[in-house]
Amino acid sequence: MRELLFKNVTIIGVGLIGASCALALKGRGLCGTVHGYGRKEANLKQAKELGIIDEYSLEITKACEDADLVILSTPVGLFRNIVLEMRDVLKNDTLVTDVGSVKGPLVNELEELMPEGVHYIGSHPIAGSDRSGILTARADLFDGVRCIITPTSRSEESSVRQITTLWESCGGKVEIMDPILHDEIYAAVSHLPHLIAYALVNTVDDINAEYLNYAGSGFKDTTRIALSSPELWRDISLLNGNNLIALIERFGNNLNVIASLIRNAEAAGLEHEFSKARTLREKC
Amino acid sequence: MRELLFKNVTIIGVGLIGASCALALKGRGLCGTVHGYGRKEANLKQAKELGIIDEYSLEITKACEDADLVILSTPVGLFRNIVLEMRDVLKNDTLVTDVGSVKGPLVNELEELMPEGVHYIGSHPIAGSDRSGILTARADLFDGVRCIITPTSRSEESSVRQITTLWESCGGKVEIMDPILHDEIYAAVSHLPHLIAYALVNTVDDINAEYLNYAGSGFKDTTRIALSSPELWRDISLLNGNNLIALIERFGNNLNVIASLIRNAEAAGLEHEFSKARTLREKC
Repeated sequence: MRELLFKNVTIIGVGLIGASCALALKGRGLCGTVHGYGRKEANLKQAKELGIIDEYSLEITKACEDADLVILSTPVGLFRNIVLEMRDVLKNDTLVTDVGSVKGPLVNELEELMPEGVHYIGSHPIAGSDRSGILTARADLFDGVRCIITPTSRSEESSVRQITTLWESCGGKVEIMDPILHDEIYAAVSHLPHLIAYALVNTVDDINAEYLNYAGSGFKDTTRIALSSPELWRDISLLNGNNLIALIERFGNNLNVIASLIRNAEAAGLEHEFSKARTLREKC
Repeated sequence: MRELLFKNVTIIGVGLIGASCALALKGRGLCGTVHGYGRKEANLKQAKELGIIDEYSLEITKACEDADLVILSTPVGLFRNIVLEMRDVLKNDTLVTDVGSVKGPLVNELEELMPEGVHYIGSHPIAGSDRSGILTARADLFDGVRCIITPTSRSEESSVRQITTLWESCGGKVEIMDPILHDEIYAAVSHLPHLIAYALVNTVDDINAEYLNYAGSGFKDTTRIALSSPELWRDISLLNGNNLIALIERFGNNLNVIASLIRNAEAAGLEHEFSKARTLREKC
């Protein structure tokens, strides 16, 4: 039998990522009891019936009082209030992490809210999907997946080691990254593309929603992530707002360059823009 | 043995679509000889060796002089000059079609260039791909695929029937559409998404090309069509320029709505924009 990494694990928000964390830990015998917290009892009940969690509470304090590890896996906009609610009941030496897509200043904010003796390290396993809910959860969701962790100058080395072991044990490849840099990178390669996908679908609707009947694989691939949870992406957009506002402007400029090349029938210039993008995309 | 639809078929531009037309027709015994024309002899030679075409010429007139059916499958920007070059050698009753992604005014232009007794009907089989070249060609490329044809008020019914039979025999589902409406629809569901994909890749490059190393499946799907042929999309963009310029502006407005909701921290408004897009996208 493998050594337990954590005796009591609490998952706050039992959806795709939270439930997959539970399955990955339990499936490998890495934890004792998994306690779930969420807003919808029906969901928690189903998670228990499916063996994803062992027990659940509708009160955060009750769900967290025995926890050795707490994983925040709700939409990121809720983290702050959840930490405020649970902080008083956390045991000494409890490790708290999250799986949010935004790090940046939020990491420092959450760290400051932790009581003395409780350790917080931010995580971002890059395993998000346009699918959501416990039925999409899988024990192997993190296999080979990049898991970014964002310790700060105040983080203890032992906590960094613990969180590294956690993700590596679940199959992930851990990368330590500055939280501010994290948000700059993911604004460009993930958050902006989501806003674009949503805006593109709405643009077709502006013209004529019936035209969507003619969408082929190109349109469907380009807008697949517009199927993602609006609540989740609302929070990510707001919390990474400064990067996104700057990127929307820059992207708009690039699209206007194309519009202006079309307007002036500059064939060579257009081909150059497209070739540059293709060459870069081929490296992905 | 099935009846021949056309004795001599000429494919102008032997790439993914042109070569697949040849394979679809030959594979079903629907045509006699397939003659290929192109700019690169090495490509034509390979197409002949692979049995995709039976013979080839580097001169358009030579490739077309015996043709009963001519399929234009080069980038759309070349159609006009090709028709000007071949028109004098075409036999009476030859049927000319194309597989271009732009129809609109181009259809009328090409129709007017046809000599007396030669019939032109525009086609657009929706089977394009980010892949290109004869090695990607398949006899079943048109199976179940929507094939739009765009006859005009001057088109003869017998030609419309012939072109309908052509695509249906190759496995396609034929839909007759006004060429102007065609360009409005495909600007929205295909051409604009391509411009967006190219511009998005170039935006990440503006910030830091290294960030592309962090691109996940969301980014990759959203920008897959940035792998498409720059030459092809240069022509499509220019020929459908008016629709695209208007759409870029409309899309830019939608993206700016999102930027402004982020700037003003309007959570409910953001969630509404995203939900609207998700609901529409679910219907695709």
